[in-house]
Amino acid sequence: MTNPACPLCEGDGGLLVFRNEDLRIIQASEAGFPAFYRVVWNRHVAEFSDLSAAERQVCMHAVVKVEQVLRSELQPAKINLAALGNLVPHLHWHVIARFEGDSHFPAPLWAAAQRPVDEAQVAAVASRCIDINRLIAEAMAL
Amino acid sequence: MTNPACPLCEGDGGLLVFRNEDLRIIQASEAGFPAFYRVVWNRHVAEFSDLSAAERQVCMHAVVKVEQVLRSELQPAKINLAALGNLVPHLHWHVIARFEGDSHFPAPLWAAAQRPVDEAQVAAVASRCIDINRLIAEAMAL
Repeated sequence: MTNPACPLCEGDGGLLVFRNEDLRIIQASEAGFPAFYRVVWNRHVAEFSDLSAAERQVCMHAVVKVEQVLRSELQPAKINLAALGNLVPHLHWHVIARFEGDSHFPAPLWAAAQRPVDEAQVAAVASRCIDINRLIAEAMAL
Repeated sequence: MTNPACPLCEGDGGLLVFRNEDLRIIQASEAGFPAFYRVVWNRHVAEFSDLSAAERQVCMHAVVKVEQVLRSELQPAKINLAALGNLVPHLHWHVIARFEGDSHFPAPLWAAAQRPVDEAQVAAVASRCIDINRLIAEAMAL
């Protein structure tokens, strides 16, 4: 089931880290947030409760795997999870590692920036993401 | 396990809709968003992945029950789900019914407002919340 007007039906939505028949994990790398991942359900559904109970477990298993790798590799101040989809109503979970001193902390990253981007911090996190991407793929393959 | 400095250890955090030994559901009623609920894990843990797999299922079951009642009673344009916790790192899930024409739609409600609050829309949604609160409690009791 795909929707031709939907960007998450038309493309992966970011750097592909893992894919199976149910879902994919992409590195979104929004500006200032290299450790910004998305778990995208492959089928075009809008809401989490559009999934069956079994599918919801599969989906949150992937969200947790991403969260666990980010926590163990980056020791972030906080993980932010969100399924919003007001603009792109195709189920996708944001999984974002947040750090004290990031451009928006402690505000949600959809709020106004609190300070300029710390380029050195961003570069340090970004440099870890090749390993993180591999570890996420390995964790999903188990 | 409680943390004396944590507002979600010290109080319910909003109008109590349901509680069991694991979690509670509150109506948060943030300004302009009467159908803003939170599923708060009772034990003081920061991250979703601090829960066991069984606990995560219990937690998301509650999130989905709230989402299902909001969808069936309000037919919102979108449900927004989020576990952020940068300021209050005690696991809580936001479950928010969003409507076209609400003060922030389609932006996340942590972003800048897009337009003034539509007081009539807010009042219409708020007037449904007594029933919604009862239906959530009934859904959780099943």
